[in-house]
Amino acid sequence: MSPFTATAPDPLAGVNGTGKRAVVLLSGGLDSATCLAWARAKGFLPVTLAVRYGQRHAVELEAARRISRLLGAEDHREVAVDLRAIGGSALTADLEVPRGRSAEQMEHGIPITYVPARNTVFLALALGLAETLGSSDLIAGMNAIDSSGYPDCRPEFVRAFESLAALATRAGAEGASFRVHTPLMLLNKAGIIRLAATLGVDLSITHSCYDPASDGLACGTCDSCLLRRRGFETAGIADPTRYTSRSGS
Amino acid sequence: MSPFTATAPDPLAGVNGTGKRAVVLLSGGLDSATCLAWARAKGFLPVTLAVRYGQRHAVELEAARRISRLLGAEDHREVAVDLRAIGGSALTADLEVPRGRSAEQMEHGIPITYVPARNTVFLALALGLAETLGSSDLIAGMNAIDSSGYPDCRPEFVRAFESLAALATRAGAEGASFRVHTPLMLLNKAGIIRLAATLGVDLSITHSCYDPASDGLACGTCDSCLLRRRGFETAGIADPTRYTSRSGS
Repeated sequence: MSPFTATAPDPLAGVNGTGKRAVVLLSGGLDSATCLAWARAKGFLPVTLAVRYGQRHAVELEAARRISRLLGAEDHREVAVDLRAIGGSALTADLEVPRGRSAEQMEHGIPITYVPARNTVFLALALGLAETLGSSDLIAGMNAIDSSGYPDCRPEFVRAFESLAALATRAGAEGASFRVHTPLMLLNKAGIIRLAATLGVDLSITHSCYDPASDGLACGTCDSCLLRRRGFETAGIADPTRYTSRSGS
Repeated sequence: MSPFTATAPDPLAGVNGTGKRAVVLLSGGLDSATCLAWARAKGFLPVTLAVRYGQRHAVELEAARRISRLLGAEDHREVAVDLRAIGGSALTADLEVPRGRSAEQMEHGIPITYVPARNTVFLALALGLAETLGSSDLIAGMNAIDSSGYPDCRPEFVRAFESLAALATRAGAEGASFRVHTPLMLLNKAGIIRLAATLGVDLSITHSCYDPASDGLACGTCDSCLLRRRGFETAGIADPTRYTSRSGS
């Protein structure tokens, strides 16, 4: 049993990455920053990868650069991919971001902030970078608990990607097997926040909001802000996030 | 047995796409143009997708637009993804493209023109577009015969991607199954050229060269040009390609 949640296995148990290069997908948010700290705690030599995908919240990319530097990654890469040409999500198309929803409302169905095939695209890019760097370890913040039903955040998706990776690459053809580490998979947001605190991550440098105000501050009312706020509350840890006054909090 | 090669199954047998929307990955080359013509012959309503990935040969993208229009696609999309930030290939990094190699030389090992995880990235983008369009059919020109050992051109890679797609998407979570059609998989280049001729494709509008001259003409000596030239010779069909004088042919 984990000290971070009642039922999940301890994310700090198992896995020895000592001296192994790993590619960490970094969004600039709380989850992936915690993944980077996890990677360092496990001994990996992390190279971070941020994806600029036409998201409304480009402020995340600045946060990612800052987090990579402050948490001691070996290198930071940024890949641009314009998912707006594909469309279909409130995060990339001109649809309204939902606000003020209860935990119950968020739990039902796949939300319109779901970006078609996003994690498949992101893991594919991380795989390409890993292959170039001679690494066979990818680390990503996918989470099946608080992900509001995104299909590409489930463990079976991650296992299927590992199978694909072995067949997709030169390294795989030569016998390497790829591992996608998802240390947050079975934690709820409060558990992730406790893990971050244990690892000494300063979460004030992370950004979660889907729709920040013009001053770059978090809105406090989108699904992502609400999950984050409730997570700090449940964890019993003070929330260092600065919210814009629009949130009324 | 196929009329197009001695051993492969007939790519025009089976598959009924009547009235179904499909996403066709279009590179601007001979293979994917033939795939688009195949899709139309099968009754699919194709939407074409070209990926601008930082390749040296951006002239391909113009060819893709032209091919999409001339071969009757419903729509054409272009997605930009900068694979140069990942590096590792002569097609995207500053490495020398190999020239004048024999068929035997090309057969051995994975060449430096291999782009890490390229087809994984491309299929992921096609999957995202398919999901947005409500389509569950992807069509791509992967080919295991003349692909010089690229790991992501093999049938087992394609099957693994189909498995991933069902787990990666909202449509898959709701029961849809995705099919990646690769009508060229078991054809050699001469077989593809014969198929294109049967389907009435004007191959002079396609572009295959890895390293075109400043006037946009094909070099005639890179692996891709050599495969194409030998394909026309073997097929007994006149090559309509205009090569630059640098090729000495």
